[in-house]
Amino acid sequence: MHSRLAKVLHPLCGMPMVQWVVQAAQEAGCDVHLVVGHQAEAVKAATAGLPASLQDPPQGTGDAVRCAAAALPPEGTVIVLAGDVPMVRAETLTALLGGHGEALCTVLTALMPELEAQTSGYGRIVREGEAVTRIVEAANATETERQIREFNTGIYAFDVGWLVQEVLPNLQPHPPKDEYYLTDAVEAAAKAGRLQAVLHEDPSELSGINDRAQLADAEARLQSRLLLRWMREGVTVRDPASTYVDHSVTLSADVTLGPSVVLQGNTTVAEGVEIGSHCVLRDTRVEAGARVEPGSICTGAHIGPGCVVGPMARLREGAVLQEGSRVGNFVEIKKTTLGEGAKANHLSYLGDATVGAGANVGAGTITCNYDGHGKHPTHIAAGAFIGSNTALVAPVSVGAGAIIGAGSCVTEDVPDNALAVSRARQKTLPGKAASIHERNAERARAAKEDS
Amino acid sequence: MHSRLAKVLHPLCGMPMVQWVVQAAQEAGCDVHLVVGHQAEAVKAATAGLPASLQDPPQGTGDAVRCAAAALPPEGTVIVLAGDVPMVRAETLTALLGGHGEALCTVLTALMPELEAQTSGYGRIVREGEAVTRIVEAANATETERQIREFNTGIYAFDVGWLVQEVLPNLQPHPPKDEYYLTDAVEAAAKAGRLQAVLHEDPSELSGINDRAQLADAEARLQSRLLLRWMREGVTVRDPASTYVDHSVTLSADVTLGPSVVLQGNTTVAEGVEIGSHCVLRDTRVEAGARVEPGSICTGAHIGPGCVVGPMARLREGAVLQEGSRVGNFVEIKKTTLGEGAKANHLSYLGDATVGAGANVGAGTITCNYDGHGKHPTHIAAGAFIGSNTALVAPVSVGAGAIIGAGSCVTEDVPDNALAVSRARQKTLPGKAASIHERNAERARAAKEDS
Amino acid sequence: MHSRLAKVLHPLCGMPMVQWVVQAAQEAGCDVHLVVGHQAEAVKAATAGLPASLQDPPQGTGDAVRCAAAALPPEGTVIVLAGDVPMVRAETLTALLGGHGEALCTVLTALMPELEAQTSGYGRIVREGEAVTRIVEAANATETERQIREFNTGIYAFDVGWLVQEVLPNLQPHPPKDEYYLTDAVEAAAKAGRLQAVLHEDPSELSGINDRAQLADAEARLQSRLLLRWMREGVTVRDPASTYVDHSVTLSADVTLGPSVVLQGNTTVAEGVEIGSHCVLRDTRVEAGARVEPGSICTGAHIGPGCVVGPMARLREGAVLQEGSRVGNFVEIKKTTLGEGAKANHLSYLGDATVGAGANVGAGTITCNYDGHGKHPTHIAAGAFIGSNTALVAPVSVGAGAIIGAGSCVTEDVPDNALAVSRARQKTLPGKAASIHERNAERARAAKEDS
Repeated sequence: MHSRLAKVLHPLCGMPMVQWVVQAAQEAGCDVHLVVGHQAEAVKAATAGLPASLQDPPQGTGDAVRCAAAALPPEGTVIVLAGDVPMVRAETLTALLGGHGEALCTVLTALMPELEAQTSGYGRIVREGEAVTRIVEAANATETERQIREFNTGIYAFDVGWLVQEVLPNLQPHPPKDEYYLTDAVEAAAKAGRLQAVLHEDPSELSGINDRAQLADAEARLQSRLLLRWMREGVTVRDPASTYVDHSVTLSADVTLGPSVVLQGNTTVAEGVEIGSHCVLRDTRVEAGARVEPGSICTGAHIGPGCVVGPMARLREGAVLQEGSRVGNFVEIKKTTLGEGAKANHLSYLGDATVGAGANVGAGTITCNYDGHGKHPTHIAAGAFIGSNTALVAPVSVGAGAIIGAGSCVTEDVPDNALAVSRARQKTLPGKAASIHERNAERARAAKEDS
Repeated sequence: MHSRLAKVLHPLCGMPMVQWVVQAAQEAGCDVHLVVGHQAEAVKAATAGLPASLQDPPQGTGDAVRCAAAALPPEGTVIVLAGDVPMVRAETLTALLGGHGEALCTVLTALMPELEAQTSGYGRIVREGEAVTRIVEAANATETERQIREFNTGIYAFDVGWLVQEVLPNLQPHPPKDEYYLTDAVEAAAKAGRLQAVLHEDPSELSGINDRAQLADAEARLQSRLLLRWMREGVTVRDPASTYVDHSVTLSADVTLGPSVVLQGNTTVAEGVEIGSHCVLRDTRVEAGARVEPGSICTGAHIGPGCVVGPMARLREGAVLQEGSRVGNFVEIKKTTLGEGAKANHLSYLGDATVGAGANVGAGTITCNYDGHGKHPTHIAAGAFIGSNTALVAPVSVGAGAIIGAGSCVTEDVPDNALAVSRARQKTLPGKAASIHERNAERARAAKEDS
Repeated sequence: MHSRLAKVLHPLCGMPMVQWVVQAAQEAGCDVHLVVGHQAEAVKAATAGLPASLQDPPQGTGDAVRCAAAALPPEGTVIVLAGDVPMVRAETLTALLGGHGEALCTVLTALMPELEAQTSGYGRIVREGEAVTRIVEAANATETERQIREFNTGIYAFDVGWLVQEVLPNLQPHPPKDEYYLTDAVEAAAKAGRLQAVLHEDPSELSGINDRAQLADAEARLQSRLLLRWMREGVTVRDPASTYVDHSVTLSADVTLGPSVVLQGNTTVAEGVEIGSHCVLRDTRVEAGARVEPGSICTGAHIGPGCVVGPMARLREGAVLQEGSRVGNFVEIKKTTLGEGAKANHLSYLGDATVGAGANVGAGTITCNYDGHGKHPTHIAAGAFIGSNTALVAPVSVGAGAIIGAGSCVTEDVPDNALAVSRARQKTLPGKAASIHERNAERARAAKEDS
């Protein structure tokens, strides 16, 4: 992976790789126990709450399972799964369990596409009739055995009692690195005549991730699966190929997602909402009938019923838009509540503010919420009208129904229904433009000569 | 579909599904008559001007055709098409008509990919030699008949006179819902020895849409078809897979579309225009040699020859950019004409305005066009220079060649060549910053203690 | 191509088509000599520094090679390549050279997919056993020869001495256009019994580009190749299908590229940097640990270590962000240096400016750098605090630690640690809002009556 991040922590659709495997196992009804080694603390943090055993130093797959032996129940079945097979589905594990029966070991197998069969390093499944007799490692395979297309995916179900009491204690290290192989347990089951195989039809589901190209393939595949589910539940996805929806997102019927939309984290989108192209929403709740227009970026926001946001709006954490309110282009909202039907349509910054119902925030309005040391609140009451290009120096309040004249800098509270304005009188000097142009042109000439 | 919207009204490349079917039929030379039921008024509105019969209540496909019987001509050929097969092409219908000849019924067929052949619910085409003897429904098919890969697509050509006079009046209802089946008409033609089939090579073109995943597949396919046509006519599409062009858009030679571009509605783009990545244009006309830079969103705008727009500009309805004018980042233009060579390059809002040729609108300029009750115009004459951070309180005029000082709020008209400024004199208080910082830090400390 | 631009100059992943061919040849160890005709000067400019011969008028492929004859060395091997096969890889040319040996001509061949074999216009390779006896043009092929799937890709290695001295001088023109065919040289080699073929497994790599659909296919393929290389070197590409990285871009391990990212020109991105979705970077250097948030557009910028840019920021040429500085949404930076830890977080335009370490540029700040004739500098020293909605009229300086009051227009230099403010006193008129609303409502009524 050429990465500072442990392989199994790389995210896929917003969830660490290992968690996809954990989730599949849990959905198949398994209790999950982890064996962690590389970046152990980070892996444990990413799978919060799961019991884990530490394997340190790493001494092979058999050793890894042995590390967890004490945590296993005395009897029953255990599935052994690598953390880097994020595409595995619960149904597949259920099928493995269903086929296990009285075997000591059941290996999940798949068929290689023919092209790869000659060169693949996977262990081949040797059968006599239906019965599996053994698994031969690629390196030890005869020319005939190398023709076998059924291979070992490395996913197993074991009889726990047998594995823990009879097999793990007797594993022997293998040269060159003195590692303990889990395949020895498989071999022991074969020798006992109680090895089985369950053939899975789709080998790519069981592929391990070993570089970022495979990571990208896995993400595309998991994404397709998520989107297919949402489409079947009534979400219109204009272009599934360019749409990115995290596993943790919740959508509803008659939601429409435009091309190149990205939905992340705990985003929920209610019925009938339209999310325009190129929008990015993270941890944002959108209520029924709202519309988020193209190119808007929302994080930690709450967009009420029937609101219209964007295009090119930015909602940040704590932005709360009550019913029917409106945030337009080049407007940033942070820790601010917009009351019902309130509007901030153009080029504004509202931070640490409350805006009452029906208030109109003019273009170019800025809440000066930061004084270099702390943040301060601005309160705009219902029905107020903030003229364009106004600076509101917090802490400050504008009363209900008040009007602020365009271009003002409001430093003192404004009572209900008052007019406030801080505007120098316009001076108009007829014919004066010519001399200014002359001066500026001269200055430009001089600058050019200087350089 | 899990939708409040009737299935055939879901849009594909900007056109309702049913209209794609209508268009294919019209291109094949057919007069189209609709049979509408669910959301009948909306379907009629979406196919404006077409004659339609109402089927209420719905009683099957045979009943649907019977509803239209009175509207059909006394003789000739009628094609019966479902409204949910939007990928059907005119050429395919022409081929069906071409193969119809003297038959009473000609069914359009296709071959199932082998995998599906066992399970598919489609009717199988039973032939003796070349001749079609009958169509057997999947439910009634023998094991041998189920192996037949040629299936009935549900698209038919009928002899009108025979269908209307001899068949439709005699259709019998079928249990369990007492519906009338159009396949009975097919069977009647078979019995008369005058059933034919025209085999179409691409079954996916004739697929019906039954969920949103199929809707997305259809949209991708129609989009590919549209883009392929434009590419062959000389449009460079950097990445067809992420480009979305409605059916109603018109492009020209040497247009370049960047990745993730969305063009909608009646957008027309002239020769040599470059549309940057992530732009969204709707109902916008772009003239030759203009450039729309990445991330710009334009609706109802007219971009003149050689203009440069964006990046991240917003043009709204009634934005008219005359030759060589320039709108830059974070600028919104609405119902405003920019004269030749005029510029509004940064962070501005111009609404209900006219800007004369060569005028320069400084960064942060706002036209205060709304007073809480109505919208008012701003006129900036040719060659005027609007200093940055200026609010223009409409209605107001700035004369030709006039200069507005930065930071002004203009409330009175400015004559040609005048200078206008409304700026409080700068007061500079040496050393004063320290005490302000002290006060603000103290305030922050107090706030922290409070909380 | 329906284009004003010569075909071989159409760009692919930021490089003209012909340059891809040149680069493959150079990587295979060849000295490259061009034969140019259509738009000769532009083609030479696009392949700067390479020797070129002019073919004017165009008289066929044999004539083209003859034009370059004088520039070829007296002996050795020459590969002849068309300029419209941009997907050809150096390894493929190396294999051609490796197979050439003592032949007079070695033709690079490939196998047609079966479907095309009947109709393809390519010349077929006729072999007796292993040996190539001749190439038969499609037009002259017998029915049996048309079944041959091995075809001539039009890429050849020739013995230079033989080609230049014996073949080119003796080429004869062919009707109908009296053109000279390079295939006559191939035929001469066949007659001499010294024609060979090297079979290449992937025919699509050797496809010529003849329309924009093929251009788009080639771009997708070259893009995949570039991205695969970067992913294998440790770059996470969330969605390779919607990511566009020019050939000239340099990435590093643990870089993450979000969906729909576009990286162009001489962009370099250092270790651990995250580039959010929908960003467009051209000629921009991003240092380690920086983050560029979604929807940002950067051209000619330098983003220092640990900086955070965006979302929806715009950096233009000469934007230099020193370590840990921050540029937020709707902020445009041009020819401006932001010192360490300085911030410009909201709705600002900084042009031709320097901002000292730790300075805070408030929301809505505008440097008024243009006076209609020339550009002027603004200097903001370390630790200064620029209040929101401030216009800085350049040339102007704000001293270290100075504070500018919100809503000011700064026209005179501000000393270190001073407070400067240019703000009209706020006038608050209690109860006045009602009469203004009355006047505005009346005005709206009147306007309505007028219209």
